[in-house]
Amino acid sequence: QMPRGNLETVHHRALVLAQLRRWLDGLKFREAFECMRKLRINLNLIYDHNPKVFLENVETFITQLDSINHINLFLTELKEEDTTCTMYPRPESSPPQSQAVSGQKKVDIVCDALRKALEAMDANKFCLSILTSHVKKTVPELEIALQKVHELREKPPETPGAASAEEALKYLLFLVNVNDLYEHSLGTYDFDLVLMVAEKSQKDPKEYLPFLNMLKSLEPNYQRYTIDKHLKRYRKALVHLSKSGEEHFIEVLQLVKEQKLFSEALRLYTADSPQYKLVSSAYAEHLVGQQQAEQAGLLLWRCGEPVRALQAFTSCSSWRNAICVAQQIPLPPDQLALLARDLAEKLTEQRRYSEAALLLDQYAKDCEEAILALITGAVWEEALRLIYVHNRQDITETNLKPALLEAVNSQTGFLEAQVATFNRHRSRLAVVREQKEKARLDMLDEEGPDCPDAELYSEASSVLTASKYSQSNSRISSRSSKNRRKAERKKLSLKEGSPMEDRALMHALSEIITTVDKMREEIHSLLKALVLFQFDKQAGKLQLAYEEALQTMEGAVPEVWPEGLLSSNAPVTGPNSTANSIMASFQQQQQKPAASQPDPEIPTAPKMRNGVKWKLTILK
Amino acid sequence: QMPRGNLETVHHRALVLAQLRRWLDGLKFREAFECMRKLRINLNLIYDHNPKVFLENVETFITQLDSINHINLFLTELKEEDTTCTMYPRPESSPPQSQAVSGQKKVDIVCDALRKALEAMDANKFCLSILTSHVKKTVPELEIALQKVHELREKPPETPGAASAEEALKYLLFLVNVNDLYEHSLGTYDFDLVLMVAEKSQKDPKEYLPFLNMLKSLEPNYQRYTIDKHLKRYRKALVHLSKSGEEHFIEVLQLVKEQKLFSEALRLYTADSPQYKLVSSAYAEHLVGQQQAEQAGLLLWRCGEPVRALQAFTSCSSWRNAICVAQQIPLPPDQLALLARDLAEKLTEQRRYSEAALLLDQYAKDCEEAILALITGAVWEEALRLIYVHNRQDITETNLKPALLEAVNSQTGFLEAQVATFNRHRSRLAVVREQKEKARLDMLDEEGPDCPDAELYSEASSVLTASKYSQSNSRISSRSSKNRRKAERKKLSLKEGSPMEDRALMHALSEIITTVDKMREEIHSLLKALVLFQFDKQAGKLQLAYEEALQTMEGAVPEVWPEGLLSSNAPVTGPNSTANSIMASFQQQQQKPAASQPDPEIPTAPKMRNGVKWKLTILK
Repeated sequence: QMPRGNLETVHHRALVLAQLRRWLDGLKFREAFECMRKLRINLNLIYDHNPKVFLENVETFITQLDSINHINLFLTELKEEDTTCTMYPRPESSPPQSQAVSGQKKVDIVCDALRKALEAMDANKFCLSILTSHVKKTVPELEIALQKVHELREKPPETPGAASAEEALKYLLFLVNVNDLYEHSLGTYDFDLVLMVAEKSQKDPKEYLPFLNMLKSLEPNYQRYTIDKHLKRYRKALVHLSKSGEEHFIEVLQLVKEQKLFSEALRLYTADSPQYKLVSSAYAEHLVGQQQAEQAGLLLWRCGEPVRALQAFTSCSSWRNAICVAQQIPLPPDQLALLARDLAEKLTEQRRYSEAALLLDQYAKDCEEAILALITGAVWEEALRLIYVHNRQDITETNLKPALLEAVNSQTGFLEAQVATFNRHRSRLAVVREQKEKARLDMLDEEGPDCPDAELYSEASSVLTASKYSQSNSRISSRSSKNRRKAERKKLSLKEGSPMEDRALMHALSEIITTVDKMREEIHSLLKALVLFQFDKQAGKLQLAYEEALQTMEGAVPEVWPEGLLSSNAPVTGPNSTANSIMASFQQQQQKPAASQPDPEIPTAPKMRNGVKWKLTILK
Repeated sequence: QMPRGNLETVHHRALVLAQLRRWLDGLKFREAFECMRKLRINLNLIYDHNPKVFLENVETFITQLDSINHINLFLTELKEEDTTCTMYPRPESSPPQSQAVSGQKKVDIVCDALRKALEAMDANKFCLSILTSHVKKTVPELEIALQKVHELREKPPETPGAASAEEALKYLLFLVNVNDLYEHSLGTYDFDLVLMVAEKSQKDPKEYLPFLNMLKSLEPNYQRYTIDKHLKRYRKALVHLSKSGEEHFIEVLQLVKEQKLFSEALRLYTADSPQYKLVSSAYAEHLVGQQQAEQAGLLLWRCGEPVRALQAFTSCSSWRNAICVAQQIPLPPDQLALLARDLAEKLTEQRRYSEAALLLDQYAKDCEEAILALITGAVWEEALRLIYVHNRQDITETNLKPALLEAVNSQTGFLEAQVATFNRHRSRLAVVREQKEKARLDMLDEEGPDCPDAELYSEASSVLTASKYSQSNSRISSRSSKNRRKAERKKLSLKEGSPMEDRALMHALSEIITTVDKMREEIHSLLKALVLFQFDKQAGKLQLAYEEALQTMEGAVPEVWPEGLLSSNAPVTGPNSTANSIMASFQQQQQKPAASQPDPEIPTAPKMRNGVKWKLTILK
């Protein structure tokens, strides 16, 4: 159809749409279709107007159009877009249309519904439309379309007027890029089909015939593997290759490694086969490279490679697994002891003293080292347990007691330092807040409501600073929020006068509180050990110091995190505000684009675990 | 001085105060004092006007007044109140006075400063004023005052005009209640002083003489103890009693128990004395009654009562201590094994499976039970370790593998239930919020800005509901915040239509997220164990289910806890608001008294520990 002159298309669109809606509501699809084609109205509307009704009347639609071309036109114009939301909004009075089917895509729904109806009515007659419905799906079903063409060729339809294989293929080539079609025909592993497509295409037979002949000469599974690989369908390639005989296993391994199809490969072999073992080994090697040594160890262990499993487990301090594998091998006692010492050393470096002690005690049979590890780790009760198990009360005097006294001192010193930093930050925060509030009110007051600079002083200001986060008080930092915090820290600086100094201070205060609060269990067990050895005086002092620290911090929370802090952008009202400042801040708030701030969030008040009882009654 | 007629006191107060301030600034204390006395102006102003200047010029003040009576008048009128803040505010123009000394109380500061000056100038002459300065202190120093009277009697002053002991005592009795003075005289343990006071009082000698004679007959420490006890000064009583000889130790114990002075008593005896042991025993008994059995055990252990210590430790599952004491006793092996089993059973009840297993393995020598405890507790790696230590691979087949498969099923089921509840609450929350918002806007719109009912629909509404909190999703509940939450729950009901339903839903959603998030470690170790035994399919399903659950919850957070939720009382603006509704909500906000809501706080978004890696690469 040629484009028409402009004049001819001048219609009042609202009137036209109203008429179309009436036709569609009355199932007069033909009238609607003709009109839309003439006035170039998007054909999607036929479906979008009322999906449910359309799907229930697909046959009527086909019967009324009664034209393969028209049906194809409708199919090819299908788009995911809902035209009643975009081009042709519904009149406000009409009730909202409920979507017929959810989850599936619209184009797929319509293609499938039409094809089902077409096949039921006359598969031969509507052959080309059926092909179109395959090709137009979100993920085009080219193989199925090709298969149908192939069937036409095998069994030419007897009905007069039905499309021949020739015509159908031509039509497909009109719809789809020829190379795509060729590749997909290869993907059916049907050489007749491939040849048929190749012949219709403008491809050079000298190019494709040798390739096809080579393929034909191969063992069927290996042939399919070769095709899959050519089409970059590596998963399928792996499946076919694995079926093509043991002599190709080296290729399997190569493919698996190249394409990292380890998990898929494992599923293709039984756990007791040599192939399974080889794939597992390769996978393990890959995992070790990915810092996943523990999982590598599990694979190696279960496929019967204990020595390599031991290596993997040892490398990542997965000590329980390492020791089990070692006993399975079995390692001779002296080597097991060496292994235990080796693992214990690594664990000690990671401050996992209890586990190190277990290894030293039970596998290296060195109770003295074990007890010392526990003392170093401040695991007092367990240290005492081992002392009694091995009847080594001498260590109590030589090591345990001195370590207890040292621990009191270091904990007391640590608490003092934390409290001092805390108080310094807290005072500074009060100063910074006062300055900010004053600056903001001044600005609002002097320059009136439209002053854009006032924003700079609001809590939500997004001024960046490049200076480094200069302070870290957390001895124990939880890994989980580490990365997020790291990113935020870059914006927060405790340097006096930095734009986000208040938040940096809140952040630092929050960290101190969390750190000190986390000490409850540690202090509790230290106090008990001190009491047991009659160090009541030292214990009493520590208890007092810790209690005061906790009280200081708990008492500061309402000041550092006042109620309503998060809504600090609410209009400024108060004794120091003026009519101007209130209106200005109110307007600012509305002008501010929502969710435009990539700022570090305002740190929330840390929760103190007051439920964790740590105090000793006997030290009051 | 008689009160004067009204007419005479009519002065313009501002003028008078201005004059007084000028006098005080000019150190004209006499003029100021006279004027204030005449016009009944509170004498505290003399100090309050400028504390620093007053303290620097105490001698001048005394010299100018030059009257014991006047000084006494000033002292007796002293109050903690700062009159420049209350009765006589400073004129606005004057600079704020910096407080001279902080920490100490004003009355004490003035009394001490005056006394120091008086004693330096003429202790005899100002005797009565000095006594007043002792008596007027926040905690009256009656003993010191009495002591001074006593000194006067011993060494009568030779200066003419100086007060005699007689006069001084009379004056004291005028200032202080006679019974108080008598009791305090007893407290000096000085019978001369007691008699002196008793004679001056109207007490009946038949009443006090026998008591005093009885006291005199006692051993000095026991005498003091009797007096202390009479005066209810139990700590002092304990100290004196402990010094009064071993024959009174039964009384010591009685006093300690009655007055719960255990810690104090322990400090009075050396750790190796029999008294120390007896006090410790008594203390331990008391502590057990206070649910502090572990601390009781520590006291008993260190004072050499291991059998009773063992009992205390066992009763509170303090198993490491119990086992140590048992080995110290030493318990014969079969009894130690029984003890270990007993403790293990208690620990199992508390879901402390690893510890139970250690006891069963190392002390009860029952590796099978130990391994089963670990399997029950889903401590897979440790179970496997013991299996290898004791070469009991048979248990892997009979118990470990079936338990793993059961664990997958129960975890999958649990996750499904959590996700279902989560989605139900989430949908319901959306409905409730929409209803609330609609109701609020309707109300604001219809009834205009002054409608008080609109408040009911705001987030901060404080309507209470008596219905029970009907749902608990937390398998694992942290003790720390338990009590606080319990109180809040009473206000929160998930029942449809309850006034706080939205918060109850947020609370429930938050708990589900926390519960599911806490499963990371558990799921990780289960997945590893499953992989080791080739249960890849089951592990894969569980990994997928858990990942979907986490994604569902993480995805819901921005919807359930939208940004700016806490400031939901900010003026309502948006497509559905009208000028009326905006102004109404804005006004409401200002009318609302700050911090008047004892409401449960809006639950904050739980933090998900995305840093805890739980997924296995090999299961993707």
